[in-house]
Amino acid sequence: MTERALQDQLGDLWAVCFGCGPQNEHGLRIKSYWSGDESVCAWQPADYHAATPGILNGGIIASIIDCHCVWTAIAYAYQCEGREVGSEPPILYVTSSLHVDYLKPTPMNGPVTLRARIKEVQGKKTTVTCSLFAGDVETVRGEVVAARVSVEWQGRK
Amino acid sequence: MTERALQDQLGDLWAVCFGCGPQNEHGLRIKSYWSGDESVCAWQPADYHAATPGILNGGIIASIIDCHCVWTAIAYAYQCEGREVGSEPPILYVTSSLHVDYLKPTPMNGPVTLRARIKEVQGKKTTVTCSLFAGDVETVRGEVVAARVSVEWQGRK
Repeated sequence: MTERALQDQLGDLWAVCFGCGPQNEHGLRIKSYWSGDESVCAWQPADYHAATPGILNGGIIASIIDCHCVWTAIAYAYQCEGREVGSEPPILYVTSSLHVDYLKPTPMNGPVTLRARIKEVQGKKTTVTCSLFAGDVETVRGEVVAARVSVEWQGRK
Repeated sequence: MTERALQDQLGDLWAVCFGCGPQNEHGLRIKSYWSGDESVCAWQPADYHAATPGILNGGIIASIIDCHCVWTAIAYAYQCEGREVGSEPPILYVTSSLHVDYLKPTPMNGPVTLRARIKEVQGKKTTVTCSLFAGDVETVRGEVVAARVSVEWQGRK
């Protein structure tokens, strides 16, 4: 398990992202940790992230799964290249598709935990699966296809 | 086209929902209008809904597609029963699954428009397809399976 969150190792790559940007004070600011075969994120919702009082909103769930899975794809790509996360040149992935199955309502009386794994890599596309747990109960399953892009995607050179 | 947004016709059904709750001042507060065969939502992102400056975050996109499609399923169910939206007893749907294909980056230099249609109804499950447009350009396609539940789902009686 890395000591620093992936989001804090890659400088300003996604600095203002609503889901994971460390500098977005209105955002969700998730922190993802990669252990070599799994990435983990514990996240505490605010009251206003509800769907209805006490139940976490499905869009917020999709948002944290999306960002966590993209960061998992990024971490795995660095690992495959034998490089430290954050080393130059930066590795950038974006979401190609997102699928979320809501198995049961997710209570908001504590933090939720995301656990993601690499399912497959095909060329520039990495498929990542993710489960969301409230306590020990798996309430949501997601799958993200992340696509590797150049840093020019962000309008940078 | 209904004159009032669906979210404003159904009282407090989803009053505090992050995506569509009229009373959630931190939320996205989308407004959906049903025309009888299509529902439309125009929504203006804030700067902090970005993925990277100028590009709309994929989780936010998933959130607005999710809520808009669920409201479309609700409106269609009222229509099938020949009832006014908001008439008692309330019709409640929740998200069973969500799929989003990101076709291209969505710029944030103006409002985005969602257009959703009913794909099929099987028992308690309604499948809704949705496209997101930035100007005239379709940048995202989504599909939501919404499941009809009783109002007890929300902990109410």
